[in-house]
Amino acid sequence: MPVLVMKFGGTSVANIDRIRRAAKRVGVEVANGYDVIVIVSAMSGRTNELVGWVDEISPLYDAREYDAVVSSGENVTAGLMALTLQEMDVPARSWQGWQVPLITTSAHSAARIEEIPTDNISTKFAEGMRVAVVAGFQGISPEGRVTTLGRGGSDTTAVAFAAAFEAERCDIYTDVDGVYTTDPRVTDKARKLDKIAFEEMLELASLGAKVLQTRSVELAMRYNVRLRVVSSFEEQSDNAGTLVCAEEDIMESNVVSGIAYSRDEAKMTLISVADRPGIAAAIFGPLSDAGVNVDMIIQNISEEGRTDMTFSCPTNQVARAEKAMQGAKDRGEINYHDLVADTDVAKISAVGIGMRSQSGVAAKMFKTLSDEGINIKVIATSEIKISVLVDRKYMELAVQALHDAFELDKAA
Amino acid sequence: MPVLVMKFGGTSVANIDRIRRAAKRVGVEVANGYDVIVIVSAMSGRTNELVGWVDEISPLYDAREYDAVVSSGENVTAGLMALTLQEMDVPARSWQGWQVPLITTSAHSAARIEEIPTDNISTKFAEGMRVAVVAGFQGISPEGRVTTLGRGGSDTTAVAFAAAFEAERCDIYTDVDGVYTTDPRVTDKARKLDKIAFEEMLELASLGAKVLQTRSVELAMRYNVRLRVVSSFEEQSDNAGTLVCAEEDIMESNVVSGIAYSRDEAKMTLISVADRPGIAAAIFGPLSDAGVNVDMIIQNISEEGRTDMTFSCPTNQVARAEKAMQGAKDRGEINYHDLVADTDVAKISAVGIGMRSQSGVAAKMFKTLSDEGINIKVIATSEIKISVLVDRKYMELAVQALHDAFELDKAA
Repeated sequence: MPVLVMKFGGTSVANIDRIRRAAKRVGVEVANGYDVIVIVSAMSGRTNELVGWVDEISPLYDAREYDAVVSSGENVTAGLMALTLQEMDVPARSWQGWQVPLITTSAHSAARIEEIPTDNISTKFAEGMRVAVVAGFQGISPEGRVTTLGRGGSDTTAVAFAAAFEAERCDIYTDVDGVYTTDPRVTDKARKLDKIAFEEMLELASLGAKVLQTRSVELAMRYNVRLRVVSSFEEQSDNAGTLVCAEEDIMESNVVSGIAYSRDEAKMTLISVADRPGIAAAIFGPLSDAGVNVDMIIQNISEEGRTDMTFSCPTNQVARAEKAMQGAKDRGEINYHDLVADTDVAKISAVGIGMRSQSGVAAKMFKTLSDEGINIKVIATSEIKISVLVDRKYMELAVQALHDAFELDKAA
Repeated sequence: MPVLVMKFGGTSVANIDRIRRAAKRVGVEVANGYDVIVIVSAMSGRTNELVGWVDEISPLYDAREYDAVVSSGENVTAGLMALTLQEMDVPARSWQGWQVPLITTSAHSAARIEEIPTDNISTKFAEGMRVAVVAGFQGISPEGRVTTLGRGGSDTTAVAFAAAFEAERCDIYTDVDGVYTTDPRVTDKARKLDKIAFEEMLELASLGAKVLQTRSVELAMRYNVRLRVVSSFEEQSDNAGTLVCAEEDIMESNVVSGIAYSRDEAKMTLISVADRPGIAAAIFGPLSDAGVNVDMIIQNISEEGRTDMTFSCPTNQVARAEKAMQGAKDRGEINYHDLVADTDVAKISAVGIGMRSQSGVAAKMFKTLSDEGINIKVIATSEIKISVLVDRKYMELAVQALHDAFELDKAA
C-alpha cells in the first residue's frame, strides 16, 4: 500500500481531545488506502517545561542528559496516539527513536539523521498494522544514547521518514493553515501562499518563520519530498494549506515572497581583537566546537593591528559563546579587550527567488526602514534574501513597513 | 569501591530544589567512598497524570502502549538528577531501562525483572564515574518494547540493582521517616518501628502500606539485601529510618507489628454459579490471564448445584474482571446469573510474626471490630496476618480501634 507521512505538532496534540481529532484525520487516510506513518511532537508546552528544568539546573548543561530529558515528551504523545487509534479500531503501535532505530550522529541536541532502517516498520505493515506512530525529534547515537535533532526536529523526522519510505506525501499538521507572507500576528495584511519554493521556505525557516524546521526543508528539497503545511484546526476539505515544492512548479511569484523576523538573536561584539591572518578561524572554530550557531559576521576596518568583530547567534547560546571565547583567550589563541552581548535586537529578513532576476530589492528595503527612522545595525545578504539586525523595539514596525513596501498582500 | 544503592521516590524529586537536596545526599555518600547507583521515580504527580491520560483514552488499554507512556516520567528525573550531580562536580550519567539493559518479562505493566547485566555500569565506574542514575520502574522486554514493573516498581528496581551489584545497602528515600505501626494520618498514636522483619514488611506492603512495593521486599528477602527506609526531608543524622531485616535480627516484637488498610479494593460476587468440579479454575484462570490480581476468595455453601463466589481485586481492575468473566460466560466455560461489584469496601489487616506463637489474635480482632459495630464482610488469614473487608466508611475507625486493642503505641 502507498505510504503517507503525517506529522502533528505540539498544539495539534495538546490534549486528549486534540489527539482524538488528529487520530480521526489519520483514520481518514487509512480508509483512503494508505499505510500511515504518524510523527508526533510533545504536547504543547511540555518541551518548554523540560527545557526550563534543565536550564534551572545549569545553563551549561551536558547535552547528552538534556537529550535524555527533553525527548520524553514525544514518547508520551506517541503512546497516547497509538492507544487512541487502537480505540478507533485502527491497528497501530508506537515507536520510540531507539526502537526504529533512527540512527543519528552524536551531536547531542543538534544531531543529524544518518539512517532510518525501514525493516521493522515495513514488517509490521506487511502483517496488517496500518499506522506506525513514531516519536519525533529523537534518535539514537552510535554510542546508544538518546539524541535530539534540535527544536522543531519533528518536522525533520517526518521528512526523513517520507524519504526513507518513499511516501507519496508528507503532511505537516500545525496550528496555522499554511505559510504566510509574514506572521499574521504582526500585520493583518499577511496573506497565505498556495505554493512556495523549497529555497524560499528554507530561507524563511532559517530566518525564524516557525512553520517548518530548516533542515526538514533541506531534506525535502534534496529528496524531492512533496511537503504540505496544513492546519489541524480546519475542516480538511477547506484546507489545502501550502505546498512546498520545486521552483519550476510555481508559475508566478512576487519578487519578495515573505518577510521573516526573529527576536531570539543576539549581537555579540569582540572589542579590539588583535588582527592577524587566521584570526577568523581562531574565533569561529571554538564557537563552532561549542555548538554556537553563528549567523551574521561583520569585521570592522582594522586600525593599528586591532579590529572589532561582530557576530550574531541565538540568544540562548550567549553563555556558551562567552565561555568558548574566554577559553580561547585563556589558551592564548585569541586576544581581545572585551566581549559585549546585545540581546536587545531582532533580525528582519526579506526573502524571494524573484530577487535573482530583479535588482533594487536591497535599496528598497533600506530606504523603507530609513523612512521609518529605523537604524540598521548589521546587514547580511544571500542570493534570495536580505537580513538586517535592528533594535528589537522596531521589530513589528519594520515587518509591517516592508510587507507594505513589497505589496505582499497582493498575489503575483 | 563499595556500591550503595539510593532510591528517591516521587516526592523526594518533586521539583528542582528537591532534586538538588537529594543530589546533596548522594554527594555525601560519594565523599564517603561509595560508588552510588541512584534509582529515581517520576516527579510526584507525573505518573498519575500520564495514567490519567491513558485512562481517558481507553479503560481497556494496550498495556504495551501504557508502558511506553508512563515510563517517561522516570527518564526525565534520571536526566535531571545526572545534570544536578554534574553541576556539583560529581561524575554522573543517566541510564534508561533499555540502556542498562534491565531485561524483564513481557508481562507489560506488571513485568518481572529477569536480568540486570552489570557490565555497562561497572565499566563506567571503573573509568571514574561515581554515580549511575537509573530510571526506576522500567525495563525492556525480549521483544524490545518498554515494560514497567507496576506502581511503586522503582523500589523493586532499587533492590534488584542492590542484589546485582552486591551493594552494601539499599536506602529507600521517601516522604516518611520509616515504617509505622499504621498510617499516622489515621491515628496520631502510630509509632515508628526501628526494625521490621522482611516477612512482616512483605505483608504490610502487599496489604496497602504504601512505603515499599511488595516485590521489592520479596527480592530483598531472597537476596538478603539490607533495606533501609529513610526520610528525604529530615537531617540525615537524626534519621535512622527503619531497617527491614531478617527475623533473627529482631530481639523483641509485639504480637502484632502493624495495622494496614487499603481503600482500593473491590468486592466482586458472581451470583448463582453452576457448581461443578473445576469451576474455581474456570473462573480464576481467565481472571489471571486478564491480569486481574485476585486477593481474597470465598465460596458460599452450594445449594441445588449452584453457589455464589466472592473475590476481591483492586478497584481499577473491576472493568477488566467483568470483561474476563463475560468472555468466559460467552465461551460457555462458566455460567452465572449476575456479577455484582461492590467498590465501597476497604481491607483492614493486622500483621505480626508474633502471631505464629501466640493464639487468640483473630478472636481479639473480630471482637474489637464487633464492639465498634463494624460488620465483617470477608475474612482471609495467613500465618502472620489477618485481613477483613469492611464498609469503607468504617475504615479509619477500624484501624484506630485495632491499633488501640493491640497496644501498638507501646514498644515491645
